[in-house]
Amino acid sequence: MAKQQENPGALGNLIEALKQLPGIGEKTATRLAYFVLRQPVTVAQSIAESLIAAREQLHTCHDCCNFTETEVCPICSDPSRQESIVCVVEQPSDLAAFEKSRHYQGKYHVLHGILSPLDGVDESKLKVKELIERVKSGKVQEVVLATNPTVEGDTTALYIARLIKYNGIKVSRIAHGIPVGSEIEYLDGATLSKALQNRVTL
Amino acid sequence: MAKQQENPGALGNLIEALKQLPGIGEKTATRLAYFVLRQPVTVAQSIAESLIAAREQLHTCHDCCNFTETEVCPICSDPSRQESIVCVVEQPSDLAAFEKSRHYQGKYHVLHGILSPLDGVDESKLKVKELIERVKSGKVQEVVLATNPTVEGDTTALYIARLIKYNGIKVSRIAHGIPVGSEIEYLDGATLSKALQNRVTL
Repeated sequence: MAKQQENPGALGNLIEALKQLPGIGEKTATRLAYFVLRQPVTVAQSIAESLIAAREQLHTCHDCCNFTETEVCPICSDPSRQESIVCVVEQPSDLAAFEKSRHYQGKYHVLHGILSPLDGVDESKLKVKELIERVKSGKVQEVVLATNPTVEGDTTALYIARLIKYNGIKVSRIAHGIPVGSEIEYLDGATLSKALQNRVTL
Repeated sequence: MAKQQENPGALGNLIEALKQLPGIGEKTATRLAYFVLRQPVTVAQSIAESLIAAREQLHTCHDCCNFTETEVCPICSDPSRQESIVCVVEQPSDLAAFEKSRHYQGKYHVLHGILSPLDGVDESKLKVKELIERVKSGKVQEVVLATNPTVEGDTTALYIARLIKYNGIKVSRIAHGIPVGSEIEYLDGATLSKALQNRVTL
């Protein structure tokens, strides 16, 4: 017997629609749906309108592939940022995290994913071609690979490094080590061994 | 200095809109927004459309005040359900939980909230007037108060009990006790003391 949809009609449709979002299952979707029904109609309207607006107005930047409303994003068109160094990240949210630290003055390149053969993600689904073209343009002197410190992230970093290294470009990987403010007692062995291996002479 | 909105434009608007939902803060809203941008445009459209449709099509049932698309909800218009017993719940989601158990054959009344003076919720904001009118209509013989076992839930139950008891109606409160499948070892004292107090002769 096919599982009957618990809430028929408009409520059920809303719950099904919200369940498309990551980390939102049947229970949370139901809670959110009832919440929206209790609120003034403006709440539903504002969410609906901003969803459509964001999806329509935002596209990827011609240079760095980050989401932007303009042809070239504010970071790529900022003349005060170094064009010679490009930080390669997996997702726009990683770029936002680096920007929050306010210490990086170069430019970025967003891959929009990570090599993951098990999930069917190969290089054609990532913005690797765009990165290579950017590097070939001649303005870039260093590429910092800032993919996540996971198996897929490391693999993607190595893959990209091999593709662009022969151009005489300096290719680096962000440092692995102990995070600031953490307690050594609670850190995993892999992190500690990387921290020892990459120790810096004072 | 006013806190600058981290993400300007359409992305920032979407994040702000999603933050209106309960349990969704800056981080989750940002994650959801980026997810929607990565998905086909149909995902954003389906969520936006179902939000508007649910908010426009659903209203409260004339009899029980549950959300419905028809003038009278399917439960209230079902002739096989007993009209003489009404189960009073706080929220439509509580009604859904009772319906899932499939053991209750009476009707419901949804209060859409709970008396909570600190949050500015008095009886005028609840569907209490509608309940009293229903009881006065003469068809109801028993009202089961199924508000949550919290201070506000108990207070609301007592308040409603006083309002309708003089009409010669039987007023009951759902039983407090140990939940089925739980372990006595891990239950709180208040529940255990209620379970002892309300023990049933075998």
